[in-house]
Amino acid sequence: MQTPRRQGRPPVLENAYERILDGAAVLFAQKGFDASSISEIATTVGMSKAAVFHYFPAKQDIYDAIIVRALRGLKDQVSDAVNNDNASLDRLRLFMTSHASYFEENFWSFVTMLIGYGGMATPTLKQEALALRDEYESLLREIIREGVKQEQIKDVDPVDASRAILSMLNWMARWFKPGGERSAAQVAEDYYSIIVGGLKRA
Amino acid sequence: MQTPRRQGRPPVLENAYERILDGAAVLFAQKGFDASSISEIATTVGMSKAAVFHYFPAKQDIYDAIIVRALRGLKDQVSDAVNNDNASLDRLRLFMTSHASYFEENFWSFVTMLIGYGGMATPTLKQEALALRDEYESLLREIIREGVKQEQIKDVDPVDASRAILSMLNWMARWFKPGGERSAAQVAEDYYSIIVGGLKRA
Repeated sequence: MQTPRRQGRPPVLENAYERILDGAAVLFAQKGFDASSISEIATTVGMSKAAVFHYFPAKQDIYDAIIVRALRGLKDQVSDAVNNDNASLDRLRLFMTSHASYFEENFWSFVTMLIGYGGMATPTLKQEALALRDEYESLLREIIREGVKQEQIKDVDPVDASRAILSMLNWMARWFKPGGERSAAQVAEDYYSIIVGGLKRA
Repeated sequence: MQTPRRQGRPPVLENAYERILDGAAVLFAQKGFDASSISEIATTVGMSKAAVFHYFPAKQDIYDAIIVRALRGLKDQVSDAVNNDNASLDRLRLFMTSHASYFEENFWSFVTMLIGYGGMATPTLKQEALALRDEYESLLREIIREGVKQEQIKDVDPVDASRAILSMLNWMARWFKPGGERSAAQVAEDYYSIIVGGLKRA
Protein backbone atom coordinates (compact mmCIF):
# COMPACT_ATOMS: atom_id res chain seq x y z
CA MET A 1 0.00 0.00 0.00
CA GLN A 2 1.44 3.34 -1.06
CA THR A 3 0.94 5.90 1.68
CA PRO A 4 0.95 9.48 0.46
CA ARG A 5 3.76 11.51 2.00
CA ARG A 6 2.49 14.01 4.54
CA GLN A 7 4.21 16.94 6.11
CA GLY A 8 4.30 17.67 9.81
CA ARG A 9 2.93 14.33 10.93
CA PRO A 10 3.53 14.08 14.69
CA PRO A 11 5.15 10.82 15.88
CA VAL A 12 2.08 9.86 17.93
CA LEU A 13 0.16 9.43 14.67
CA GLU A 14 2.41 6.71 13.32
CA ASN A 15 0.55 4.50 10.87
CA ALA A 16 -2.34 6.94 11.18
CA TYR A 17 -3.33 6.47 7.54
CA GLU A 18 -3.71 2.72 7.92
CA ARG A 19 -5.32 3.01 11.35
CA ILE A 20 -8.00 5.36 10.03
CA LEU A 21 -8.81 2.91 7.24
CA ASP A 22 -8.96 -0.01 9.67
CA GLY A 23 -11.21 1.79 12.16
CA ALA A 24 -13.50 3.22 9.51
CA ALA A 25 -13.88 -0.19 7.86
CA VAL A 26 -15.34 -1.65 11.07
CA LEU A 27 -17.91 1.15 11.24
CA PHE A 28 -18.77 1.10 7.52
CA ALA A 29 -19.18 -2.69 7.50
CA GLN A 30 -21.33 -2.74 10.64
CA LYS A 31 -23.42 0.42 10.31
CA GLY A 32 -23.10 1.40 6.69
CA PHE A 33 -21.48 4.46 5.13
CA ASP A 34 -24.31 6.95 5.75
CA ALA A 35 -24.67 6.10 9.44
CA SER A 36 -20.93 6.42 10.16
CA SER A 37 -19.55 9.91 10.86
CA ILE A 38 -16.02 11.29 10.77
CA SER A 39 -16.41 12.03 14.51
CA GLU A 40 -17.10 8.38 15.22
CA ILE A 41 -14.23 7.29 13.05
CA ALA A 42 -11.94 9.68 14.94
CA THR A 43 -13.15 8.32 18.30
CA THR A 44 -12.71 4.72 17.14
CA VAL A 45 -9.09 5.27 16.16
CA GLY A 46 -8.30 7.60 19.08
CA MET A 47 -7.60 10.72 17.04
CA SER A 48 -9.07 14.18 16.78
CA LYS A 49 -11.40 14.97 13.90
CA ALA A 50 -8.79 17.44 12.70
CA ALA A 51 -6.17 14.69 12.59
CA VAL A 52 -8.46 12.51 10.48
CA PHE A 53 -9.16 15.44 8.13
CA HIS A 54 -5.39 15.93 7.83
CA TYR A 55 -5.22 12.59 6.05
CA PHE A 56 -8.59 12.47 4.29
CA PRO A 57 -10.50 15.54 3.06
CA ALA A 58 -13.84 13.70 3.29
CA LYS A 59 -15.50 10.51 4.52
CA GLN A 60 -15.89 9.33 0.94
CA ASP A 61 -12.09 9.40 0.51
CA ILE A 62 -11.67 7.01 3.43
CA TYR A 63 -14.27 4.69 1.92
CA ASP A 64 -12.66 4.68 -1.52
CA ALA A 65 -9.20 4.14 -0.01
CA ILE A 66 -10.45 1.11 1.99
CA ILE A 67 -11.77 -0.48 -1.19
CA VAL A 68 -8.62 0.09 -3.24
CA ARG A 69 -6.42 -1.12 -0.40
CA ALA A 70 -8.47 -4.31 0.03
CA LEU A 71 -8.46 -5.07 -3.69
CA ARG A 72 -4.74 -4.42 -4.03
CA GLY A 73 -3.91 -6.46 -0.93
CA LEU A 74 -6.07 -9.35 -2.15
CA LYS A 75 -4.56 -9.33 -5.62
CA ASP A 76 -0.98 -9.14 -4.31
CA GLN A 77 -1.41 -11.89 -1.71
CA VAL A 78 -3.22 -14.30 -4.02
CA SER A 79 -0.84 -13.64 -6.95
CA ASP A 80 2.12 -14.45 -4.71
CA ALA A 81 0.47 -17.63 -3.42
CA VAL A 82 -0.34 -19.09 -6.83
CA ASN A 83 3.14 -18.33 -8.18
CA ASN A 84 4.61 -21.01 -5.94
CA ASP A 85 3.19 -23.82 -7.98
CA ASN A 86 2.93 -24.95 -11.56
CA ALA A 87 0.17 -27.54 -11.59
CA SER A 88 -3.12 -25.80 -12.44
CA LEU A 89 -5.28 -27.60 -9.91
CA ASP A 90 -2.81 -26.79 -7.14
CA ARG A 91 -2.77 -23.18 -8.26
CA LEU A 92 -6.57 -23.15 -8.18
CA ARG A 93 -6.56 -24.53 -4.64
CA LEU A 94 -3.99 -21.91 -3.58
CA PHE A 95 -6.06 -19.18 -5.25
CA MET A 96 -9.12 -20.20 -3.25
CA THR A 97 -7.44 -20.72 0.12
CA SER A 98 -5.30 -17.57 -0.04
CA HIS A 99 -8.34 -15.52 -1.11
CA ALA A 100 -10.19 -16.87 1.93
CA SER A 101 -7.24 -16.18 4.26
CA TYR A 102 -6.95 -12.61 3.03
CA PHE A 103 -10.69 -12.18 3.57
CA GLU A 104 -10.49 -13.47 7.14
CA GLU A 105 -7.36 -11.47 8.02
CA ASN A 106 -8.83 -8.25 6.62
CA PHE A 107 -12.44 -9.00 7.48
CA TRP A 108 -13.95 -5.52 7.93
CA SER A 109 -12.14 -3.94 5.00
CA PHE A 110 -13.14 -6.86 2.84
CA VAL A 111 -16.80 -6.61 3.84
CA THR A 112 -16.73 -2.84 3.25
CA MET A 113 -15.16 -3.47 -0.15
CA LEU A 114 -17.82 -5.97 -1.20
CA ILE A 115 -20.70 -3.80 0.02
CA GLY A 116 -19.23 -0.50 -1.12
CA TYR A 117 -17.76 -1.33 -4.47
CA GLY A 118 -20.67 0.19 -6.40
CA GLY A 119 -20.67 3.41 -4.38
CA MET A 120 -17.15 4.68 -5.06
CA ALA A 121 -16.98 8.40 -5.87
CA THR A 122 -13.38 9.41 -6.64
CA PRO A 123 -12.93 8.73 -10.38
CA THR A 124 -9.20 7.92 -10.23
CA LEU A 125 -9.67 5.47 -7.34
CA LYS A 126 -12.68 3.95 -9.07
CA GLN A 127 -10.58 3.36 -12.17
CA GLU A 128 -7.88 1.81 -10.01
CA ALA A 129 -10.39 -0.47 -8.29
CA LEU A 130 -11.83 -1.60 -11.62
CA ALA A 131 -8.36 -2.33 -12.97
CA LEU A 132 -7.44 -4.34 -9.86
CA ARG A 133 -10.66 -6.33 -10.04
CA ASP A 134 -10.09 -7.07 -13.72
CA GLU A 135 -6.50 -8.19 -13.09
CA TYR A 136 -7.70 -10.38 -10.25
CA GLU A 137 -10.43 -12.05 -12.29
CA SER A 138 -8.00 -12.48 -15.20
CA LEU A 139 -5.60 -14.30 -12.92
CA LEU A 140 -8.25 -16.88 -12.04
CA ARG A 141 -9.42 -17.27 -15.64
CA GLU A 142 -5.80 -17.74 -16.70
CA ILE A 143 -5.32 -20.53 -14.16
CA ILE A 144 -8.39 -22.28 -15.54
CA ARG A 145 -7.38 -21.77 -19.20
CA GLU A 146 -3.94 -23.13 -18.43
CA GLY A 147 -5.50 -26.12 -16.64
CA VAL A 148 -7.62 -26.87 -19.70
CA LYS A 149 -4.47 -26.74 -21.87
CA GLN A 150 -2.58 -28.99 -19.44
CA GLU A 151 -5.56 -31.40 -19.55
CA GLN A 152 -5.98 -31.17 -15.78
CA ILE A 153 -9.22 -29.24 -16.04
CA LYS A 154 -12.25 -30.09 -18.18
CA ASP A 155 -13.03 -27.93 -21.19
CA VAL A 156 -15.31 -25.55 -19.26
CA ASP A 157 -15.98 -21.89 -20.03
CA PRO A 158 -13.28 -20.08 -17.97
CA VAL A 159 -15.59 -17.09 -17.44
CA ASP A 160 -18.42 -19.18 -15.98
CA ALA A 161 -16.08 -21.32 -13.92
CA SER A 162 -14.29 -18.25 -12.51
CA ARG A 163 -17.59 -16.65 -11.65
CA ALA A 164 -18.82 -19.77 -9.90
CA ILE A 165 -15.65 -19.88 -7.81
CA LEU A 166 -15.57 -16.17 -6.95
CA SER A 167 -19.27 -16.31 -6.04
CA MET A 168 -18.61 -19.00 -3.45
CA LEU A 169 -15.65 -17.08 -2.03
CA ASN A 170 -17.28 -13.65 -2.04
CA TRP A 171 -20.58 -14.83 -0.59
CA MET A 172 -18.61 -15.89 2.52
CA ALA A 173 -18.71 -12.21 3.51
CA ARG A 174 -22.45 -12.74 4.06
CA TRP A 175 -22.29 -15.64 6.50
CA PHE A 176 -18.74 -16.37 7.67
CA LYS A 177 -17.68 -14.98 11.04
CA PRO A 178 -13.96 -15.07 11.91
CA GLY A 179 -12.99 -16.99 15.01
CA GLY A 180 -15.38 -19.91 14.55
CA GLU A 181 -14.66 -23.62 14.32
CA ARG A 182 -13.30 -23.56 10.80
CA SER A 183 -11.00 -20.96 9.31
CA ALA A 184 -12.06 -19.31 6.06
CA ALA A 185 -9.22 -21.16 4.33
CA GLN A 186 -10.66 -24.49 5.52
CA VAL A 187 -14.05 -23.57 4.10
CA ALA A 188 -12.34 -22.67 0.81
CA GLU A 189 -10.55 -26.02 0.88
CA ASP A 190 -13.94 -27.75 1.20
CA TYR A 191 -15.37 -25.64 -1.63
CA TYR A 192 -12.34 -26.60 -3.72
CA SER A 193 -13.06 -30.31 -3.17
CA ILE A 194 -16.71 -29.82 -4.12
CA ILE A 195 -16.15 -27.84 -7.30
CA VAL A 196 -13.11 -29.75 -8.50
CA GLY A 197 -14.38 -33.24 -7.66
CA GLY A 198 -17.99 -32.50 -8.59
CA LEU A 199 -21.10 -33.69 -6.78
CA LYS A 200 -21.95 -36.52 -9.12
CA ARG A 201 -21.06 -39.99 -7.97
CA ALA A 202 -19.36 -41.94 -10.73
CA MET B 1 -49.12 -13.54 -1.08
CA GLN B 2 -51.77 -12.78 1.52
CA THR B 3 -53.03 -9.25 1.05
CA PRO B 4 -54.49 -7.68 4.18
CA ARG B 5 -58.16 -6.76 3.72
CA ARG B 6 -58.70 -3.02 3.54
CA GLN B 7 -61.82 -0.96 3.77
CA GLY B 8 -62.83 1.72 1.32
CA ARG B 9 -60.28 0.86 -1.32
CA PRO B 10 -61.31 2.66 -4.50
CA PRO B 11 -61.32 0.52 -7.66
CA VAL B 12 -58.60 2.62 -9.29
CA LEU B 13 -56.17 1.27 -6.71
CA GLU B 14 -56.56 -2.35 -7.73
CA ASN B 15 -53.48 -4.38 -6.85
CA ALA B 16 -52.22 -1.28 -5.10
CA TYR B 17 -50.50 -3.34 -2.42
CA GLU B 18 -48.46 -5.30 -4.93
CA ARG B 19 -47.82 -2.26 -7.10
CA ILE B 20 -46.36 -0.33 -4.17
CA LEU B 21 -44.02 -3.21 -3.38
CA ASP B 22 -42.94 -3.49 -7.03
CA GLY B 23 -42.29 0.23 -7.43
CA ALA B 24 -40.53 0.59 -4.11
CA ALA B 25 -38.29 -2.41 -4.85
CA VAL B 26 -36.91 -0.66 -7.95
CA LEU B 27 -36.03 2.41 -5.92
CA PHE B 28 -34.62 0.50 -2.95
CA ALA B 29 -32.48 -1.71 -5.18
CA GLN B 30 -31.14 1.19 -7.23
CA LYS B 31 -30.76 3.98 -4.67
CA GLY B 32 -30.87 2.22 -1.33
CA PHE B 33 -33.42 2.42 1.45
CA ASP B 34 -32.27 5.71 3.01
CA ALA B 35 -32.20 7.62 -0.29
CA SER B 36 -35.72 6.51 -1.32
CA SER B 37 -38.66 8.51 0.05
CA ILE B 38 -42.35 7.67 0.35
CA SER B 39 -43.02 10.63 -2.00
CA GLU B 40 -40.83 9.07 -4.67
CA ILE B 41 -42.43 5.68 -4.18
CA ALA B 42 -45.86 7.30 -4.57
CA THR B 43 -44.75 9.07 -7.76
CA THR B 44 -43.23 5.88 -9.17
CA VAL B 45 -46.45 3.91 -8.71
CA GLY B 46 -48.73 6.83 -9.66
CA MET B 47 -50.48 7.21 -6.31
CA SER B 48 -50.76 9.91 -3.72
CA LYS B 49 -48.60 9.73 -0.62
CA ALA B 50 -51.82 9.33 1.37
CA ALA B 51 -52.78 6.29 -0.70
CA VAL B 52 -49.40 4.69 -0.03
CA PHE B 53 -49.76 5.42 3.70
CA HIS B 54 -53.19 3.80 3.58
CA TYR B 55 -51.46 0.49 2.87
CA PHE B 56 -48.19 0.91 4.73
CA PRO B 57 -47.77 3.00 7.88
CA ALA B 58 -44.05 3.55 7.17
CA LYS B 59 -41.34 3.06 4.55
CA GLN B 60 -39.81 0.32 6.66
CA ASP B 61 -43.05 -1.70 6.36
CA ILE B 62 -42.79 -1.62 2.58
CA TYR B 63 -39.20 -2.78 2.77
CA ASP B 64 -39.98 -5.66 5.11
CA ALA B 65 -42.98 -6.71 3.00
CA ILE B 66 -40.83 -6.82 -0.17
CA ILE B 67 -38.37 -9.14 1.53
CA VAL B 68 -41.00 -11.53 2.90
CA ARG B 69 -42.85 -11.59 -0.43
CA ALA B 70 -39.64 -12.39 -2.35
CA LEU B 71 -38.62 -15.16 0.05
CA ARG B 72 -42.09 -16.70 0.04
CA GLY B 73 -42.39 -16.48 -3.74
CA LEU B 74 -38.97 -18.04 -4.20
CA LYS B 75 -39.64 -20.87 -1.78
CA ASP B 76 -43.04 -21.63 -3.31
CA GLN B 77 -41.87 -21.58 -6.93
CA VAL B 78 -38.76 -23.66 -6.32
CA SER B 79 -40.60 -26.17 -4.08
CA ASP B 80 -43.18 -26.69 -6.83
CA ALA B 81 -40.49 -27.15 -9.47
CA VAL B 82 -38.50 -29.78 -7.59
CA ASN B 83 -41.60 -31.76 -6.70
CA ASN B 84 -42.03 -32.77 -10.32
CA ASP B 85 -39.11 -35.15 -10.24
CA ASN B 86 -37.70 -37.96 -8.17
CA ALA B 87 -34.11 -38.30 -9.26
CA SER B 88 -31.94 -36.19 -6.95
CA LEU B 89 -29.67 -34.73 -9.61
CA ASP B 90 -32.68 -33.69 -11.68
CA ARG B 91 -34.21 -32.11 -8.60
CA LEU B 92 -30.95 -30.26 -7.97
CA ARG B 93 -30.95 -28.96 -11.53
CA LEU B 94 -34.57 -27.84 -11.18
CA PHE B 95 -33.77 -26.18 -7.87
CA MET B 96 -31.00 -24.17 -9.49
CA THR B 97 -32.81 -23.20 -12.68
CA SER B 98 -36.12 -22.30 -11.02
CA HIS B 99 -34.26 -20.24 -8.40
CA ALA B 100 -32.57 -18.34 -11.23
CA SER B 101 -35.86 -17.87 -13.11
CA TYR B 102 -37.57 -16.50 -10.03
CA PHE B 103 -34.64 -14.15 -9.51
CA GLU B 104 -34.82 -12.85 -13.08
CA GLU B 105 -38.63 -12.51 -13.09
CA ASN B 106 -38.62 -10.65 -9.77
CA PHE B 107 -35.31 -8.90 -10.27
CA TRP B 108 -35.73 -5.71 -8.21
CA SER B 109 -37.51 -7.37 -5.30
CA PHE B 110 -34.89 -10.07 -5.24
CA VAL B 111 -32.02 -7.58 -5.22
CA THR B 112 -33.76 -5.60 -2.46
CA MET B 113 -34.22 -8.81 -0.52
CA LEU B 114 -30.55 -9.80 -0.75
CA ILE B 115 -29.31 -6.33 0.16
CA GLY B 116 -31.94 -5.66 2.80
CA TYR B 117 -32.21 -8.93 4.60
CA GLY B 118 -30.07 -7.80 7.55
CA GLY B 119 -31.94 -4.52 8.01
CA MET B 120 -35.47 -5.76 8.64
CA ALA B 121 -37.23 -4.01 11.51
CA THR B 122 -40.68 -5.53 12.09
CA PRO B 123 -40.09 -8.47 14.47
CA THR B 124 -42.95 -10.64 13.17
CA LEU B 125 -41.89 -10.18 9.54
CA LYS B 126 -38.27 -10.78 10.46
CA GLN B 127 -39.28 -14.06 12.11
CA GLU B 128 -41.25 -14.98 9.02
CA ALA B 129 -38.30 -14.18 6.74
CA LEU B 130 -35.93 -16.26 8.87
CA ALA B 131 -38.35 -19.19 8.84
CA LEU B 132 -38.75 -18.97 5.05
CA ARG B 133 -35.00 -18.82 4.53
CA ASP B 134 -34.49 -21.83 6.81
CA GLU B 135 -37.17 -23.84 5.00
CA TYR B 136 -35.60 -22.93 1.69
CA GLU B 137 -32.10 -23.95 2.71
CA SER B 138 -33.49 -27.16 4.23
CA LEU B 139 -35.11 -28.04 0.93
CA LEU B 140 -31.76 -27.88 -0.85
CA ARG B 141 -29.94 -29.78 1.87
CA GLU B 142 -32.66 -32.46 1.76
CA ILE B 143 -32.21 -32.88 -2.00
CA ILE B 144 -28.48 -33.38 -1.46
CA ARG B 145 -28.95 -35.78 1.47
CA GLU B 146 -31.42 -37.81 -0.55
CA GLY B 147 -28.99 -37.86 -3.48
CA VAL B 148 -26.25 -39.22 -1.24
CA LYS B 149 -28.66 -41.95 -0.05
CA GLN B 150 -29.65 -42.77 -3.63
CA GLU B 151 -25.93 -42.96 -4.49
CA GLN B 152 -26.34 -40.30 -7.18
CA ILE B 153 -24.38 -37.71 -5.21
CA LYS B 154 -21.00 -38.14 -3.54
CA ASP B 155 -20.81 -38.26 0.23
CA VAL B 156 -20.31 -34.50 0.62
CA ASP B 157 -21.32 -32.33 3.57
CA PRO B 158 -24.85 -31.18 2.63
CA VAL B 159 -24.36 -27.88 4.47
CA ASP B 160 -21.19 -26.98 2.57
CA ALA B 161 -22.57 -28.15 -0.75
CA SER B 162 -25.81 -26.18 -0.27
CA ARG B 163 -23.85 -23.08 0.65
CA ALA B 164 -21.64 -23.41 -2.39
CA ILE B 165 -24.71 -23.68 -4.63
CA LEU B 166 -26.68 -20.85 -3.02
CA SER B 167 -23.57 -18.64 -3.14
CA MET B 168 -23.34 -19.05 -6.91
CA LEU B 169 -27.05 -18.35 -7.34
CA ASN B 170 -27.25 -15.42 -4.93
CA TRP B 171 -24.11 -13.72 -6.20
CA MET B 172 -25.86 -13.38 -9.57
CA ALA B 173 -27.67 -10.40 -8.03
CA ARG B 174 -24.29 -8.65 -8.14
CA TRP B 175 -23.49 -9.05 -11.81
CA PHE B 176 -26.43 -10.46 -13.80
CA LYS B 177 -28.59 -7.98 -15.72
CA PRO B 178 -31.93 -9.27 -17.09
CA GLY B 179 -32.40 -9.04 -20.82
CA GLY B 180 -28.90 -10.06 -21.87
CA GLU B 181 -27.71 -12.91 -24.10
CA ARG B 182 -28.30 -15.67 -21.60
CA SER B 183 -31.25 -16.02 -19.26
CA ALA B 184 -30.53 -16.46 -15.56
CA ALA B 185 -31.81 -20.04 -15.88
CA GLN B 186 -29.21 -20.74 -18.58
CA VAL B 187 -26.46 -19.43 -16.32
CA ALA B 188 -27.79 -21.69 -13.55
CA GLU B 189 -27.77 -24.62 -15.98
CA ASP B 190 -24.07 -23.92 -16.69
CA TYR B 191 -23.34 -23.66 -12.99
CA TYR B 192 -25.12 -26.98 -12.49
CA SER B 193 -22.86 -28.64 -15.06
CA ILE B 194 -19.76 -27.21 -13.40
CA ILE B 195 -20.61 -28.16 -9.83
CA VAL B 196 -22.13 -31.56 -10.63
CA GLY B 197 -19.54 -32.62 -13.21
CA GLY B 198 -16.61 -31.04 -11.38
CA LEU B 199 -13.69 -29.21 -12.95
CA LYS B 200 -11.21 -32.05 -12.75
CA ARG B 201 -10.54 -33.95 -15.92
CA ALA B 202 -10.57 -37.67 -15.27
